[in-house]
Amino acid sequence: MTITPAVAKFAAGSARIELGDTHVFCTASLGEGVPGWLRGSGRGWLTAEYSMLPGATPTRGAREAVRGRQSGRTMEIQRLIGRSLRSVVDLGIIGERTIAVDCDVLQADGGTRTASITGAYVAVYQVALKIKDLLGLNELPLFDSVAAASAGVVDGEARLDLDYEEDSAAEVDLNAVVTGDGRLVEVQSTAEGEPFSRAALDGLLDLVVAGAVALGAVQAAACAELERA
Amino acid sequence: MTITPAVAKFAAGSARIELGDTHVFCTASLGEGVPGWLRGSGRGWLTAEYSMLPGATPTRGAREAVRGRQSGRTMEIQRLIGRSLRSVVDLGIIGERTIAVDCDVLQADGGTRTASITGAYVAVYQVALKIKDLLGLNELPLFDSVAAASAGVVDGEARLDLDYEEDSAAEVDLNAVVTGDGRLVEVQSTAEGEPFSRAALDGLLDLVVAGAVALGAVQAAACAELERA
Amino acid sequence: MTITPAVAKFAAGSARIELGDTHVFCTASLGEGVPGWLRGSGRGWLTAEYSMLPGATPTRGAREAVRGRQSGRTMEIQRLIGRSLRSVVDLGIIGERTIAVDCDVLQADGGTRTASITGAYVAVYQVALKIKDLLGLNELPLFDSVAAASAGVVDGEARLDLDYEEDSAAEVDLNAVVTGDGRLVEVQSTAEGEPFSRAALDGLLDLVVAGAVALGAVQAAACAELERA
Amino acid sequence: MTITPAVAKFAAGSARIELGDTHVFCTASLGEGVPGWLRGSGRGWLTAEYSMLPGATPTRGAREAVRGRQSGRTMEIQRLIGRSLRSVVDLGIIGERTIAVDCDVLQADGGTRTASITGAYVAVYQVALKIKDLLGLNELPLFDSVAAASAGVVDGEARLDLDYEEDSAAEVDLNAVVTGDGRLVEVQSTAEGEPFSRAALDGLLDLVVAGAVALGAVQAAACAELERA
Amino acid sequence: MTITPAVAKFAAGSARIELGDTHVFCTASLGEGVPGWLRGSGRGWLTAEYSMLPGATPTRGAREAVRGRQSGRTMEIQRLIGRSLRSVVDLGIIGERTIAVDCDVLQADGGTRTASITGAYVAVYQVALKIKDLLGLNELPLFDSVAAASAGVVDGEARLDLDYEEDSAAEVDLNAVVTGDGRLVEVQSTAEGEPFSRAALDGLLDLVVAGAVALGAVQAAACAELERA
Amino acid sequence: MTITPAVAKFAAGSARIELGDTHVFCTASLGEGVPGWLRGSGRGWLTAEYSMLPGATPTRGAREAVRGRQSGRTMEIQRLIGRSLRSVVDLGIIGERTIAVDCDVLQADGGTRTASITGAYVAVYQVALKIKDLLGLNELPLFDSVAAASAGVVDGEARLDLDYEEDSAAEVDLNAVVTGDGRLVEVQSTAEGEPFSRAALDGLLDLVVAGAVALGAVQAAACAELERA
Repeated sequence: MTITPAVAKFAAGSARIELGDTHVFCTASLGEGVPGWLRGSGRGWLTAEYSMLPGATPTRGAREAVRGRQSGRTMEIQRLIGRSLRSVVDLGIIGERTIAVDCDVLQADGGTRTASITGAYVAVYQVALKIKDLLGLNELPLFDSVAAASAGVVDGEARLDLDYEEDSAAEVDLNAVVTGDGRLVEVQSTAEGEPFSRAALDGLLDLVVAGAVALGAVQAAACAELERA
Repeated sequence: MTITPAVAKFAAGSARIELGDTHVFCTASLGEGVPGWLRGSGRGWLTAEYSMLPGATPTRGAREAVRGRQSGRTMEIQRLIGRSLRSVVDLGIIGERTIAVDCDVLQADGGTRTASITGAYVAVYQVALKIKDLLGLNELPLFDSVAAASAGVVDGEARLDLDYEEDSAAEVDLNAVVTGDGRLVEVQSTAEGEPFSRAALDGLLDLVVAGAVALGAVQAAACAELERA
Repeated sequence: MTITPAVAKFAAGSARIELGDTHVFCTASLGEGVPGWLRGSGRGWLTAEYSMLPGATPTRGAREAVRGRQSGRTMEIQRLIGRSLRSVVDLGIIGERTIAVDCDVLQADGGTRTASITGAYVAVYQVALKIKDLLGLNELPLFDSVAAASAGVVDGEARLDLDYEEDSAAEVDLNAVVTGDGRLVEVQSTAEGEPFSRAALDGLLDLVVAGAVALGAVQAAACAELERA
Repeated sequence: MTITPAVAKFAAGSARIELGDTHVFCTASLGEGVPGWLRGSGRGWLTAEYSMLPGATPTRGAREAVRGRQSGRTMEIQRLIGRSLRSVVDLGIIGERTIAVDCDVLQADGGTRTASITGAYVAVYQVALKIKDLLGLNELPLFDSVAAASAGVVDGEARLDLDYEEDSAAEVDLNAVVTGDGRLVEVQSTAEGEPFSRAALDGLLDLVVAGAVALGAVQAAACAELERA
Repeated sequence: MTITPAVAKFAAGSARIELGDTHVFCTASLGEGVPGWLRGSGRGWLTAEYSMLPGATPTRGAREAVRGRQSGRTMEIQRLIGRSLRSVVDLGIIGERTIAVDCDVLQADGGTRTASITGAYVAVYQVALKIKDLLGLNELPLFDSVAAASAGVVDGEARLDLDYEEDSAAEVDLNAVVTGDGRLVEVQSTAEGEPFSRAALDGLLDLVVAGAVALGAVQAAACAELERA
Repeated sequence: MTITPAVAKFAAGSARIELGDTHVFCTASLGEGVPGWLRGSGRGWLTAEYSMLPGATPTRGAREAVRGRQSGRTMEIQRLIGRSLRSVVDLGIIGERTIAVDCDVLQADGGTRTASITGAYVAVYQVALKIKDLLGLNELPLFDSVAAASAGVVDGEARLDLDYEEDSAAEVDLNAVVTGDGRLVEVQSTAEGEPFSRAALDGLLDLVVAGAVALGAVQAAACAELERA
């Protein structure tokens, strides 16, 4: 697993994450203004959009801009990315500004939503550095780091970070979004076939939390690189 | 909490669920044919659509048919309803037919997605009775019942079935879809503000599973009424 | 025929009308503001939206929010509902507020557009009571009541309130919107097959006006119930 | 009032109608095939579409293709045009073919829907001549001619064919579609302000039927010109 | 080739151009206000929209308002029309007003985009006369005239103004937009089959520039007629 | 300028082109089947889609999938990419298959449409190698290579490959698509302000053809790398 920060020249923040054969290109832009319901509140906002490039998979996927609407799956994923990142950004301190995160999957082999969250955190970190300078803050406007991982039960055995083939065969699937201090932001678990037991859920969750903590180290290295730049 | 079965004359199955001040009108229609990827497989399918009527809330919501697109929230919910019900329907035995579930919220006071799943199960049960007759099956094409409940942490305390006001104040929110035998179909937990601990998750899950089991008794009574009719 | 007023807890006004096997759930919401062309005029507005729930008919209808557009039939009906109700609401006295009427057909067996108008009047009446209180008016901001009925010629004979089967066989079809004092707001008559004579039109119109007057009594009872509440 | 037939070189039928300052360009195309629900029936179909060119009015109207949807008014009008023309075309004899009528308003000064019907009949007549040849029919596949006219009450007086200014001031408005033998295909009457009496309706209807009959003579002349060509 | 100016009573400017069997109805409307990015600049704007009426061709084309989106071809053409006309209008002098040009093809036999530009110039000229009066300018707010022509290589030979049949057989196709003083505003050349040589391009360009200059005389006559009116 | 071939694991062909600060990610997918109008012809087809990622520019661009429609600019560019590549692919020999090209701009600093064409050719080359193997052809199904370049006049001086800043200041802009043997596939030249002379056009065209020939060498190196792999 590698995260390369600052891969885009014009976006305020960016990172490319490669997790197995899943590659996601993440950018974070900083704009003036907030959605209507926040105007006048003095608070900022963070939104996220997600897309899978048509050529990311062996069978070409239809381009959503051509079909004229985003799929339910896309909307579900981008809402998850947004909630996850908002949980660690101090939106109260950045003023009426919006951080717009974009996660575009260049290559997909399972786990694109969790890779997007993990990579996008680094892009947001780069924006946070710029906001700190811009506003003369003492600290970064971040409460903690956040990473996401997934696991599934394949052939009766819990495994971390399933690739596409394993994922298709999984009996249960669990995604969790975890902060740097090991607390949970979001847990989603789905039976792909048979319903699952509470014990299976607990086992997967142990695995995913450990996995997310491991990702935190890679994020930290990428963020350190941004600090040095 | 009440579930009134067979509330619609023309739909193959239907039920109205009232859970506190949340009222959902659920129908299930049976149609010939399946989506493209299942054609020729001999298997059936179940889809679900969800909508909140504009007058369901104190402030009128925009009608999605007028805006020309369903929101991300709507898509997320209807995908969840579909997955939940598919987990208990024996799609392999019903032939190339599609059960189309519709959950329209007449009145909303929190928990509309879990109420939809719980009520829609009864509508699907009514369709299952008709399929059994139609195909001369020995048993209903159902593996088990399924119900959903939600809970949240408000003021540090875990509570079942939050109403809108409590929900807005909740720190953590957990929805679970649970089969009649107590196994899990789906778990979704979200930090509304602060990230939460594993212990908080475990506590909420205990509460929700117990809640869903209690709902099962109400469902069973409604289904028994359908059997007698 | 029954009209149950105040069936929705959160909408400002509501009513459920059952006319044979046609059931319509009507709500009326009161919002601040008016469309652009009325801003600054001091006048209010009333809009209406109509929808048939997918499970309302034996063969499930496609959900318009999923198709991404309302059908021509839907638009035609909701425009008619809006015009009909605007003819009796004193929009000059309610200030720059908009009454948004929603008619959602739970069950359809012919005559949904006329039932919608008749039921929605009661929902609007409930809103009118609230506006009277809100603005301290001496009278309700209503000029009169309004109801609608339909009739058709089946097997050469004029009949009121056709059900779906009769409607499909009708040679001519007439809808009229009639005020409490028996005047006309809208008349629409269509030859379903052969063109019809002026005499046929006159006969149908006599029937429909009488029918609408009869509906007025049921509306009055429902409104009286609202007054008492 | 003038109707110029055969104004388009490539469309199977066409006519330009000028009624006061309202000018409509009507074409009728003949295509193989029918909508799904008629396939295999051996019967034909007729559809109609309507549009107002943006420059047809003093204040430019938005182009519906740019907004991405047709307005309710447009849909209502094109449905009326289609029903009106279908009432006189012998769809049972033309085989599984579709006549597609297009009415595009070049200049609008009131009465565009009735002018569209009246002009489009001549375009359809030209197509009917071609179908007669194509299929070797003994007669044209038309039962009768059809024309439409409108009238309104302005300053308490009933007048035929209101222009835009009169129309805006009208108290009642009535459109009728009338066959050559004086029978009715469609009657639509709307109170623009005050509800109207049965007597007012009767008066307007007399006027409009007489007006439509007069239009029939102009149509006949245009059709005779097509016969000679 | 003929251009008839002032063919629409209500639009500020208009012209009908007939170039062979291609007929385009052009209007130009003058409105207050400009797009967002020009607000406060004191400058005006010109936009253009293009459409082919469904009956303009032997096989009926789908109406874009019904499909809910403009095709790529339509967008490309209307962008070209807009750029071409903006090159000769003095937008700095007309204040924050927008000239909206509409080109609707009544009949299509090749060359509709170039005919649209040539005809629309005359409609814009009529608007320019009105602006001159409105603002009390000494001169028309036009830098020059502009016309467009096209040519193609058919059977190895360069020909001006191909009709639809020739156009379908053309090996190369070139459109150019040329000002009255013979300078170029836009050149677009496309190989329909084999790539083409620089010499072929040069030959076509010579032909088209000469053709456009010839069109200028017809435009001038139409504009003179407007001056006299 | 660099072109890296085979940058995507799952797409049949791919390349990443970096031209100054413009970076485009190009993939080419091979699918069975062709559009309707080619079915049964035995011929193949090539389509292209283009998109600019939101974070590609200093000010974030709106995502077209969210707005629900592609812009006119996007459609124009993707139509150009498609035509350009079809001019060199032997569609008659590949059977009823479709090559779907996707150009997604990761970073934009001017010249994205020409860079897309130049890079996409290499992705198509990789697909052509696979088709050759798949069908056992003796040669690649390509007639020639194709590349595109652009130039503009800035401060009176013609320059190749303008970056965004220069492009914004350009007086004239010319894009040309050129085959390996120096012939032209497409020429587009636009006056950004003042109309331009024929001499200016000739000068820009000389520059661009030379530029495109130079790009051919870089393409050839990337293709040779694909041959060796």
